[in-house]
Amino acid sequence: MKAVAMPTVSRVAVCGGTHGNELAGIYLVREMLKKRADGTEPVSVVTVMSNPRAAQLCVRYVETDLNRCFTRAALSAPVSETSPYEMVRSQELNALLGPKASMQAVDLLCDLHNTTANTGLCLITYSDRDWICLHICKHLQARTNTKMASTPVRYVHFDIPLNEAYSLDSVGKHGFAMEIGPQPHGVVRSVIFSAMQEGVQLMMDWICQFNSGTLFEGGWVDVYTMVKNIDYPRDSETHVITAAVHPDLQDRDFCLLHPGDPMFLCFSGETLRYRGKEALYPFFINEGAYYEKGVALSLARKRRVQIPSVRSETLR
Amino acid sequence: MKAVAMPTVSRVAVCGGTHGNELAGIYLVREMLKKRADGTEPVSVVTVMSNPRAAQLCVRYVETDLNRCFTRAALSAPVSETSPYEMVRSQELNALLGPKASMQAVDLLCDLHNTTANTGLCLITYSDRDWICLHICKHLQARTNTKMASTPVRYVHFDIPLNEAYSLDSVGKHGFAMEIGPQPHGVVRSVIFSAMQEGVQLMMDWICQFNSGTLFEGGWVDVYTMVKNIDYPRDSETHVITAAVHPDLQDRDFCLLHPGDPMFLCFSGETLRYRGKEALYPFFINEGAYYEKGVALSLARKRRVQIPSVRSETLR
Repeated sequence: MKAVAMPTVSRVAVCGGTHGNELAGIYLVREMLKKRADGTEPVSVVTVMSNPRAAQLCVRYVETDLNRCFTRAALSAPVSETSPYEMVRSQELNALLGPKASMQAVDLLCDLHNTTANTGLCLITYSDRDWICLHICKHLQARTNTKMASTPVRYVHFDIPLNEAYSLDSVGKHGFAMEIGPQPHGVVRSVIFSAMQEGVQLMMDWICQFNSGTLFEGGWVDVYTMVKNIDYPRDSETHVITAAVHPDLQDRDFCLLHPGDPMFLCFSGETLRYRGKEALYPFFINEGAYYEKGVALSLARKRRVQIPSVRSETLR
Repeated sequence: MKAVAMPTVSRVAVCGGTHGNELAGIYLVREMLKKRADGTEPVSVVTVMSNPRAAQLCVRYVETDLNRCFTRAALSAPVSETSPYEMVRSQELNALLGPKASMQAVDLLCDLHNTTANTGLCLITYSDRDWICLHICKHLQARTNTKMASTPVRYVHFDIPLNEAYSLDSVGKHGFAMEIGPQPHGVVRSVIFSAMQEGVQLMMDWICQFNSGTLFEGGWVDVYTMVKNIDYPRDSETHVITAAVHPDLQDRDFCLLHPGDPMFLCFSGETLRYRGKEALYPFFINEGAYYEKGVALSLARKRRVQIPSVRSETLR
C-alpha cells in the first residue's frame, strides 16, 4: 500500500480526572501540570483536569457522569444555574478543546481512565479506520524492554456515530480513552501509574516522530468491536444483584468466552452460563462504576484491520 | 493447661454494610436476611445492615465514618436533628446490640468488612487474650479442603482500651471485624464473597460445637499487634500525595518489612525506603478508604500467644 499523507498532529490534549476517583490519570495530569511548557516543545500539549470537583471529592462525578455529556445534543443544550455541574463543565471543555467536529478542535485528545477490570491498557475509540489512533496503538504494542512490557495493549472500537459519541475523547479530531486496569477506584497502584505514564510518553514519541516526517510502516492491528453489554442477574422486584461474576471469568478480560462457559456465580451457589450463540471477547468484567449502569461485562468481536503506512503531509 | 470454662455464646450478631461500599458483607447480610429464623436454630443470630443509607448509595458513609462512632464518648453524646446520620445510627445499633460493656450486649459481634489491601481474612480485635475470638481464629485457620483454604487467616490486635475502642464490634461482649481483601470498594468479587460466607459458617460451627460442650484444645495463635501507621509522602503545601506504594511492597501484606526496604515510588521516579529501626509486618497496604485518614499502611509486631483449652460452662 502507498503511504497515506496526513496532517501533522500539532495540538494534543491529555486529560485526566474525567472520572474523579480514577487516580492514575489524576496524579499523572498533576505531575504533567507541574512541568511548565517553556515554548521549545515540538508539540503543543494542553493538560487538563477534566472534573476538578469530582477529583477533589474522589468520586466518579458530582451530579452526572461527565463522560456521557459530549453528545452533540448535550453540548448544544441550554444550561442554567440549575444544570448539573458536569453538563456545564462538558460545554467548558468543548469550548477549550473543541468545538467537537470543528477545525478548531485539538488534533488529538487522549483521555486517561482506570478500571477495576483486568483490561491491561486499552485505547478506546469510535473508529476502526482512524489511522492515527491505530498507528499509536501499534506503536504502543511494539514497545519492548519497558516497564509496561508486561501490560497488554489493545484497540477497542465502539461503533457509534460521532454525533452520538458521548465521551470527552470524541471532541478531538482524533481521540481515544487510554483505559488501564485493574486498579480499584480511589486507589493509585504504582505499576498502573507507571504504565499510564509510559503509554502517554510513547504516544508523544510517536507524534513527534510523525510530525518530523518519519514514515510509519503499515500492518495489521487487532480491533475489538463492542457488540453488547450483559447485566448482572437481579431480583425481579428489588433489582438488587443476585450473583457475582463467576471466578472462572473474573479477571479474564479479552479471553474468548464460549457458549456454555460459566458467567455468574449466584450468592445462593448456582452457576449461570453464557447463553449466547457466538464466542465473543469479554471486557470491562466487573467494572465497579458499571453496577449502576446495568453492565456486568461487555462483549466484543475481534477482527484484524489492515492499516496503511502513514507520514505527515508537511515536514517541519 | 486446665480447660477454661466460659459462658455459652448464645446471642450472636452478624453485621454488614457498616461501610456502605464494602460489598461482600452487604450481599452476605442480604442473603442471610432472606433466610428467616424458624426458632429451631441452636444459636440466636441477629443479622444487621449497619448503615443502610450508605449501602443504598454505595459509599463508605453519608456524613461521618460509622465505624469510628462507637467510643464510649460518641455513644453517650447528645444527638439532635442536626447530628450526623452515623452518630445517630451508632446509638441505635448500640441500643440494639449493646449497650456496650453491659450484660445485655450480644455475646459475640462479627462485623463484616472488605479492604482493597491484599490482607486475606483478618479477625481484628481489641484484645490479645479473648479466648473465644482466638479459638474462632484457630478454628478458621485449621479448615482444610474448603473454598477458602487458599485464603490466609490472621489475628490482628489493636491495643486500645475498650472505652476508646471505636468500631462496631466493640459493642459485643466478644467481637471482631472480619476483614477480607483484596476487593475494590463498590465491587463484589466471587472468591471474596465465598471466603466471607465460609468464614461466617465456620464461626457458627465453632459456636454451636462450643455451646454443645465440645472441648477445644489450646495451642498457639500468631497475633499481629498494631504498632503504628505510615502516611503517604505529601506535598508540604497542598498535602496532595506525591508517591504511590512501591511495587515491591504493594500486595505484600503481612510479609516482613525490613529497614531499608522500598516503601514508596514517587510519581517523579524516586524510591523512598522504610526508615524504621525494627522489622515489622505491614498490613492495610494501600487501602483506598485510608487516603483521607493519612494512612498508606499500618505496621504490626507479631508474637505467638498461648491459648488455653476451653469449654462452655453449662451444657444444654
